[in-house]
Amino acid sequence: MIVLGLDPGTAATGYGVVSREPCGSLSLIECGVIRTTARDRLPVRLRELHEELVRLIARHHPDVLAIEDVFYARNVRTTLVLGHARGVLLLAAEEAGLEIHEYPPATIKKTIVGAGGASKVQVQFMVARLLRLKHAPQPSDAADGVAAALTYLMTARLPQLTEPQR
Amino acid sequence: MIVLGLDPGTAATGYGVVSREPCGSLSLIECGVIRTTARDRLPVRLRELHEELVRLIARHHPDVLAIEDVFYARNVRTTLVLGHARGVLLLAAEEAGLEIHEYPPATIKKTIVGAGGASKVQVQFMVARLLRLKHAPQPSDAADGVAAALTYLMTARLPQLTEPQR
Repeated sequence: MIVLGLDPGTAATGYGVVSREPCGSLSLIECGVIRTTARDRLPVRLRELHEELVRLIARHHPDVLAIEDVFYARNVRTTLVLGHARGVLLLAAEEAGLEIHEYPPATIKKTIVGAGGASKVQVQFMVARLLRLKHAPQPSDAADGVAAALTYLMTARLPQLTEPQR
Repeated sequence: MIVLGLDPGTAATGYGVVSREPCGSLSLIECGVIRTTARDRLPVRLRELHEELVRLIARHHPDVLAIEDVFYARNVRTTLVLGHARGVLLLAAEEAGLEIHEYPPATIKKTIVGAGGASKVQVQFMVARLLRLKHAPQPSDAADGVAAALTYLMTARLPQLTEPQR
């Protein structure tokens, strides 16, 4: 099972690809940040973001997308532009047939650190710990992408065994 | 010159395709509404919206996209979802190499009706008049898409002749 986690942003979208082996152990396959050029027009940046995600999906064939679900921002303009970015990311995942799960930031922090108000540094620390990494993923956007992927892997229901018939 | 106008929305995106002949006369080629199924998940609706716009562009090969630029909405959630829809629409236009122009709603109303606070009915009336249609485009979303296309055609600068050298 391979899970792609995303922390979407207009300037920088953090991502993490995490696998779970049949034995249950979790491994980090790749993490990083997709950046778009701030001085380009929005449609050009959306195309870049979509293309990069299509490439990332083609490289690892994830089964699931776990993405941060942000329903507020400092101002309306920022919220609207963030919506554009999330739109093309969700489109790429849907086109590739991934199962999509959205998590509010507080749910991700609560799952990874145990507190909905955890700091970025705490998230980085716990991501490194859970995946037995020597160093925390840098920058924090990448760690947030990995945290989204881990949230799916740590909370998704396992298929239930049917009750034995009497 | 063929211009595609869009009034983006999550449930219904109005569109209008308008051509300008070399003599300057304007004709409506097609208008309508792209609807997505309200009970589907957002990623599915985004894929439908993107696919429909890709098909519309393939059918008419417009040179320009004129799209309403909305930076407010009744609530943050609505704004964010509208951003997702605009994101996949802009992506389809950018992928097809269209020249993209964005106009605030008040600019479109001012250009078509002469007043930034014009009603939907006034916009429908003037769209029908400018294009010599017997009936106003229905529903008003479709008329708003046509109005966006007309705004480009009525305001875009014509290529300027170079000044004669003395």
